[in-house]
Amino acid sequence: MIVIMKKDATPMELSHVVARIEQMGCQAHISRGEERTLVGIIGNGRPYNTETLELMSGVEKTMKVTSPFKRASREFHPHDTRVVVGDVEIGGPEIVLIAGPCAVESQEQMSEIGAAVKAAGARMIRGGAFKPRTSPYSFQGMGEEGLKILAKVREETGLPVVTEVMQPETVPLVTSYADVVQIGARNMQNFALLHAVGQSHRPVLLKRGMMSTVEELLMAAEYILSHGNDRVILCERGIRTFETYTRNTVDINAVPLLKQLTHLPVILDPSHGTGKWKLVEPVSRAAIAAGADGLIVEVHNHPEEAVSDGAQSLLPERFAHLRDSVKAIAEAMGRQL
Amino acid sequence: MIVIMKKDATPMELSHVVARIEQMGCQAHISRGEERTLVGIIGNGRPYNTETLELMSGVEKTMKVTSPFKRASREFHPHDTRVVVGDVEIGGPEIVLIAGPCAVESQEQMSEIGAAVKAAGARMIRGGAFKPRTSPYSFQGMGEEGLKILAKVREETGLPVVTEVMQPETVPLVTSYADVVQIGARNMQNFALLHAVGQSHRPVLLKRGMMSTVEELLMAAEYILSHGNDRVILCERGIRTFETYTRNTVDINAVPLLKQLTHLPVILDPSHGTGKWKLVEPVSRAAIAAGADGLIVEVHNHPEEAVSDGAQSLLPERFAHLRDSVKAIAEAMGRQL
Amino acid sequence: MIVIMKKDATPMELSHVVARIEQMGCQAHISRGEERTLVGIIGNGRPYNTETLELMSGVEKTMKVTSPFKRASREFHPHDTRVVVGDVEIGGPEIVLIAGPCAVESQEQMSEIGAAVKAAGARMIRGGAFKPRTSPYSFQGMGEEGLKILAKVREETGLPVVTEVMQPETVPLVTSYADVVQIGARNMQNFALLHAVGQSHRPVLLKRGMMSTVEELLMAAEYILSHGNDRVILCERGIRTFETYTRNTVDINAVPLLKQLTHLPVILDPSHGTGKWKLVEPVSRAAIAAGADGLIVEVHNHPEEAVSDGAQSLLPERFAHLRDSVKAIAEAMGRQL
Amino acid sequence: MIVIMKKDATPMELSHVVARIEQMGCQAHISRGEERTLVGIIGNGRPYNTETLELMSGVEKTMKVTSPFKRASREFHPHDTRVVVGDVEIGGPEIVLIAGPCAVESQEQMSEIGAAVKAAGARMIRGGAFKPRTSPYSFQGMGEEGLKILAKVREETGLPVVTEVMQPETVPLVTSYADVVQIGARNMQNFALLHAVGQSHRPVLLKRGMMSTVEELLMAAEYILSHGNDRVILCERGIRTFETYTRNTVDINAVPLLKQLTHLPVILDPSHGTGKWKLVEPVSRAAIAAGADGLIVEVHNHPEEAVSDGAQSLLPERFAHLRDSVKAIAEAMGRQL
Repeated sequence: MIVIMKKDATPMELSHVVARIEQMGCQAHISRGEERTLVGIIGNGRPYNTETLELMSGVEKTMKVTSPFKRASREFHPHDTRVVVGDVEIGGPEIVLIAGPCAVESQEQMSEIGAAVKAAGARMIRGGAFKPRTSPYSFQGMGEEGLKILAKVREETGLPVVTEVMQPETVPLVTSYADVVQIGARNMQNFALLHAVGQSHRPVLLKRGMMSTVEELLMAAEYILSHGNDRVILCERGIRTFETYTRNTVDINAVPLLKQLTHLPVILDPSHGTGKWKLVEPVSRAAIAAGADGLIVEVHNHPEEAVSDGAQSLLPERFAHLRDSVKAIAEAMGRQL
Repeated sequence: MIVIMKKDATPMELSHVVARIEQMGCQAHISRGEERTLVGIIGNGRPYNTETLELMSGVEKTMKVTSPFKRASREFHPHDTRVVVGDVEIGGPEIVLIAGPCAVESQEQMSEIGAAVKAAGARMIRGGAFKPRTSPYSFQGMGEEGLKILAKVREETGLPVVTEVMQPETVPLVTSYADVVQIGARNMQNFALLHAVGQSHRPVLLKRGMMSTVEELLMAAEYILSHGNDRVILCERGIRTFETYTRNTVDINAVPLLKQLTHLPVILDPSHGTGKWKLVEPVSRAAIAAGADGLIVEVHNHPEEAVSDGAQSLLPERFAHLRDSVKAIAEAMGRQL
Repeated sequence: MIVIMKKDATPMELSHVVARIEQMGCQAHISRGEERTLVGIIGNGRPYNTETLELMSGVEKTMKVTSPFKRASREFHPHDTRVVVGDVEIGGPEIVLIAGPCAVESQEQMSEIGAAVKAAGARMIRGGAFKPRTSPYSFQGMGEEGLKILAKVREETGLPVVTEVMQPETVPLVTSYADVVQIGARNMQNFALLHAVGQSHRPVLLKRGMMSTVEELLMAAEYILSHGNDRVILCERGIRTFETYTRNTVDINAVPLLKQLTHLPVILDPSHGTGKWKLVEPVSRAAIAAGADGLIVEVHNHPEEAVSDGAQSLLPERFAHLRDSVKAIAEAMGRQL
Repeated sequence: MIVIMKKDATPMELSHVVARIEQMGCQAHISRGEERTLVGIIGNGRPYNTETLELMSGVEKTMKVTSPFKRASREFHPHDTRVVVGDVEIGGPEIVLIAGPCAVESQEQMSEIGAAVKAAGARMIRGGAFKPRTSPYSFQGMGEEGLKILAKVREETGLPVVTEVMQPETVPLVTSYADVVQIGARNMQNFALLHAVGQSHRPVLLKRGMMSTVEELLMAAEYILSHGNDRVILCERGIRTFETYTRNTVDINAVPLLKQLTHLPVILDPSHGTGKWKLVEPVSRAAIAAGADGLIVEVHNHPEEAVSDGAQSLLPERFAHLRDSVKAIAEAMGRQL
């Protein structure tokens, strides 16, 4: 942290700033420039609250020097983390496809889609039993019954199950059925929920909030890691911008940026990222070419009848086409699928 | 809802669209234009999922015609809702000031600030006992002890207490101490939490998410209203934009827009909305001039030592200055303070 | 400028950084922290390009310390600049209203609106003769004929004329008719145009780009000031965000922020800022309450027939209502109108 | 265009709307729904201004049905346009790399970079002689001397030259030296400039504005096409969002979206799109995987000394590495490089 003094700060003001820094148990290092004096803060290893230094008389502003995440950072942990789920490994040489409908609607639907996506190369199945919906009048998910359906499909297909958890108190229930628990974009900063999944024994698929920065995503991961769970998979799913043609704007820069900043695996959700099924396949290829470790894709056997997200869901045969197209890119990247 | 057919849609495609609409229990109304054919959907009163019509062959796109909120809309409820808390009424002719620190830090701090803001004209006191913090290493709040401190300050000052609730399972605890429960910006779409406060007997202060549209804010209010609690106060607190000089961008348009769209009271948080105490007073005046019913302002007796949000907190004497300055605007608007 | 070295930077890397800084004619000031070494750059008074220091081996990043605008800053010029146009002064105690249609359509229209807005309290008249339009198929303005109409209305009403200039080569033409030349939002970073109006002898109304930061607005003003024209009026007109209910989002924070950062007068355009006439009056009041020096408002005698921006234009009688409502706020602020 | 009447609109209001539509030379088609009446407008082939219908009594809102671009649309022109420049074809099976420094600094620099990028596979050379710079105190480009240097490098390497034009009046000068003229992001809506290059005989590289939607980009292309020049290459270069880690956010969705909406070739600028050289190569691969027809990349022989954009420039050897990496992706896509 650096404190930048005002042009016309007095020696008295400067000495007050130094005194407060020392009061916080830190050291102050003064550097006099042509126009301004700067004060570097040399920490004591413990977190401290320095923004309030901005309020002191004579202070222009303060600046952070180091990034606020530790356990999630590649500096802290230089080697790639690989998250193992059954016989699937995310973050290793293999590109992992996760597929399934937005919402679990019935056993028939899930069994049919499960078989289809397995045949088309998916390594895990997704489906929501608890659904965050903007409107209280929309379908809110089948709840525990949906979880049972997912468990049945796992039995049928052998595919591990990814499903969303929305409340701290249902973490035990959801983790008793799911292989990977998903934190949705709207809950990325639901800190009580991050705390709860951090204490669970299941890998966590953490989606970036639609208006969260990369740093905030890494801080959310830090919550989970700091509570003892180091099996976190990050997921870019598009951010909210002024562009209205697409549902969200996939931040493709975030893929290589995250791979540089953190050791955690990074996947991409092209379905929510675009909102239009016609864009899902090209954006999936782009994700892999940018270095993503996998994809989570919405697939539905009857998108026209899906209770949600139909417009961005692929038919199983289109998903098979996507798999082939992504496989070629993966191989060009020296990876397998 | 309107379905817009493609330029080259065939009569067969059109008749499939009509058939599906009828299957959903609705009526289809065909309108042939020079370039395109449109199909209006006449509903059956129940919610239906029409986005999937976009997937049908021959369909260009679909468009929503009516707004998705009902109980929150002024069409549904033309008169202003006034939320009464003790002897305070929000949404009536009086401008209501709510003030206090970001976080409850100690009994001494809260008692001192409580007395100071009461003297300066605040009608309610705020303070966080449970704090949503971006970093797991930051102070997370005093919890129930903080709630007890707030209750003590209510006794001392007579001011009703506003405090945040972060999890559905702590709603009973928080409502047992608080007069108004606050839903923070990061939880605006925590639907389980909205459900829980919707079933509680306390007024709710609902803050707009930093990434949420006005329509989504009204849908979040709709969740609370639809679960039986009609005492909801909306709060504009700044949205996230590309501008970095300020912490957020206060969406001042949202104030008159909300007053036109909904019957619920609207207040503004100039502290989070700007992130800089020097901007708090002018933006407070702007809010009242735009038609807001009140303000929620961060006040701290020692902002330089605040555990959070010091840089946007006012000293009690500056809050008194704000009150005078806002009072002049309120009177120019024909209101009191 | 500060250079932050990497955690593991070697002494050799550090000495290379110092050498380059000295090569640029500056001095380097080393400050060793617990985790990082920082190097402060002490300038030689001339501009230098330091971002490339980020590319040197061992460098983590660089940070700017001082703001890049000089002539526009309040530090440089502590007293308010007042721009005088005929008998109107912008930036003094009086709130100045500028009103008129988006586009000049005919002499009859302009004369009628001119008389109406003068009667309702406008101190200047606006109207576009050259129109920037998103579509090549939309009306592009009447050109010089429109300028002549504006000059005629000035004669009739005595009101100075504000009109937009879109190209450097038409600056002489436009300044030969106009009292104030306007740089539109889309041209805020048309540097050749800024250069040209900077060399002209007319006051400039500089609109903030719809996705420009406050700092970029001040840098655009700096272009004009640095070419010799110090009569610049800044105009906040709404920025582009994810919110779609309104045409733009008025950045009300920018009003007091600009008044703190710069000595130049600041006005607000509530018509483009909201895009909806029903929001124009409340947002106008908010602007004045936030400290703006004036307003530029679209007024049309037949908004339903306006060739552009009808939906955000006020009828003359509604503009008169706005004037009364804004006057009350101005007086509460200790100003006149 | 559709007009949506208010719930409580009277028959009189409806008939006024119909009358106005007919007055505009169009036909009205009434469709009565359960809740609302809709009026479809059937055009007369000429552009008309319907937004003002929103102002009529009884009207809730209006909605556009058809897209506003014609010549740029794939509906109008189903086959891919290929822009030929010398022996280079953009928009065909070959992926085209354009490379060079941000600014022309000297003959030596350009000749050295020209030889290096040619050796590394570039098919055209870029370099700015006229530079749009945020600060009036930054280097503004070498002007005509820079153009001469570029022409010399074309002689030396045989590579066609891409360079920016900033003002309508310098279009003749720039087109006398350049093979392709570039419209920079800040000038995407400089309509006078679009008009001027639309009348020139050179292909145009049109960069998306950092604040512009895909539709606005297509409308800017429409300006050029409608003035007679149909050799337009579109360039996605990142948009401005709330994310601050990167300079801009590459809108990767825009690549396949543009390929679906328009017949014009689409390239991507990963240098401005990311602002960090470490992200340039992965984002380049992503662009090609998403379907882009080429890349425009900043390459500098001494990025540490570049007068601008050094931090996002590649060394020639890193550009050669990028070429190899992109070539593998291009081949996986069935294209060549």
